[in-house]
Amino acid sequence: MMVSAKLRGVYCPVLTPFDKQLKPDASRFIEHSKSLLGQGCHGLAVFGTTGEANSLSVKERIELLEALLKAGIPPELIAPGTGCAALTDTITLTRHAFQSGCAGVLILPPFYYKPVEEEGLYRSFATVIEDIGDSRLKVYLYHIPPISGVPLEIALIKRLVKDFPDNVVGLKDSSGVWAYTETLLKTLPNFGVFSGSEVFLQDNLLAHGCGTITASANINAPAIRSLFEDWEGPNGAKKQAKITAVRKAIQKFPLIQGLKVIMANNLKDDSWLTVRPPLTPLSSNARQSLLKSLAQAGYIPPN
Amino acid sequence: MMVSAKLRGVYCPVLTPFDKQLKPDASRFIEHSKSLLGQGCHGLAVFGTTGEANSLSVKERIELLEALLKAGIPPELIAPGTGCAALTDTITLTRHAFQSGCAGVLILPPFYYKPVEEEGLYRSFATVIEDIGDSRLKVYLYHIPPISGVPLEIALIKRLVKDFPDNVVGLKDSSGVWAYTETLLKTLPNFGVFSGSEVFLQDNLLAHGCGTITASANINAPAIRSLFEDWEGPNGAKKQAKITAVRKAIQKFPLIQGLKVIMANNLKDDSWLTVRPPLTPLSSNARQSLLKSLAQAGYIPPN
Repeated sequence: MMVSAKLRGVYCPVLTPFDKQLKPDASRFIEHSKSLLGQGCHGLAVFGTTGEANSLSVKERIELLEALLKAGIPPELIAPGTGCAALTDTITLTRHAFQSGCAGVLILPPFYYKPVEEEGLYRSFATVIEDIGDSRLKVYLYHIPPISGVPLEIALIKRLVKDFPDNVVGLKDSSGVWAYTETLLKTLPNFGVFSGSEVFLQDNLLAHGCGTITASANINAPAIRSLFEDWEGPNGAKKQAKITAVRKAIQKFPLIQGLKVIMANNLKDDSWLTVRPPLTPLSSNARQSLLKSLAQAGYIPPN
Repeated sequence: MMVSAKLRGVYCPVLTPFDKQLKPDASRFIEHSKSLLGQGCHGLAVFGTTGEANSLSVKERIELLEALLKAGIPPELIAPGTGCAALTDTITLTRHAFQSGCAGVLILPPFYYKPVEEEGLYRSFATVIEDIGDSRLKVYLYHIPPISGVPLEIALIKRLVKDFPDNVVGLKDSSGVWAYTETLLKTLPNFGVFSGSEVFLQDNLLAHGCGTITASANINAPAIRSLFEDWEGPNGAKKQAKITAVRKAIQKFPLIQGLKVIMANNLKDDSWLTVRPPLTPLSSNARQSLLKSLAQAGYIPPN
């Protein structure tokens, strides 16, 4: 049951559009989400780092998820981020996602207190899982030490998988360190490991990982999906090189703001440029420079 | 008006007691808060790092503050922490504290996204202040880079003080770096700078700071208050040395858990040992070792 329920493919951590009053814009969020599914994403990892989710309140996240569901997006295609600094917030969001029928949840470790012991992180995840108390809850751990400041060591993951085999089914590795993914897949061969960037997609699939949950899917889903389908084929290496070049062009700039610049440019809609503090929009010069660098990398907008 | 409203003295970031189900225990919280005021604290900085506030939901914080007020603690003696990762949560808590008549608020920078630019932090604080839109709101910035991961540079503080002179009136310095406090007080002589540890209390007052907001006030308020009253007197240096020795004995152990061990021991109430994940209680051995080290440092429990 666990293995069959395991997610696989190209998932997009959907950007969250804001209006001029810095409130989330549900209608553009729905539109973009539907568009991503049409462009080849297997599913939507809403409320990730890319979605500025940690700048959203619990209520804002619940309302946005409800809006997607009301707009007809099947919950089986959605795996929301539900990990907060506060245990009770993580429980509230995880229960809401689970009761909404979502495919799974991505859970950040609590990210304020540091350093914390393995036991404390274990109790954090275990308390959430025990509180929901249902084998159908599918948890993907979210490993992003450069931002969270709280790494998930492999010993912790082994312990969680051992104690909650039905629930703890995978991980998103946004460490940027390929050796971590590799070690994890060697240690836990059935674990559902997604790379946090498509730069590692071929490596991930070769190592029997599950694919990628990648920010760039917001603006480059068709090309990433195409590699996912053809990674072992004769064009695999070439396709990997092309999407890697696009990613590296974006990564010269702050990633979330950069993706919003590309969205605004592709859709001819500058309302996409808005970010919520503490993020700041790119300057006009940086925007031009990013778009130039992207064109040089051979980027082709979807649609 | 700003100067007369400025807080001054020994403030306690009150520990938050939890029950066995990990829920905040309002009755012990009230009892402890009243006791601290009786022991010489000038006021209560509830919902700080020490209060495990970043492990509490917005609703839990609001309910606990309401409980204190209902129990008769004057809002003028309370300066709650209201800074969250999410801008909207910070606004909600700040407005609640302001409307409740609290003396001021301590605001952490948003602490998930990093690194962030000065402009992004400026906009974070400015948006909260503009949203409340009242010159009576008194904001104390909370500088605690070892935990938040987001330092508040002096250029940022100067800019906030310049643009919001009625609102941005002080800062709690929990960096542990005395040079930061010193530079800040030299740059902004009228700014209300509290040291985050009583180890710097004499230095802080000598440099025309406002005192200390210190975790150790939970268990050593009378001695800290006594130094505050007598810091220039013939016993100042001796009193400073005594409270510093106690603090250093506790700091050999994780601070929040250590303080809860001392509370449990002083009150003969082991329910004080409970912490919320990701924190973990000290082992029995560590507890004994801490209490021994504390006795050797000459610690005398209040009351």
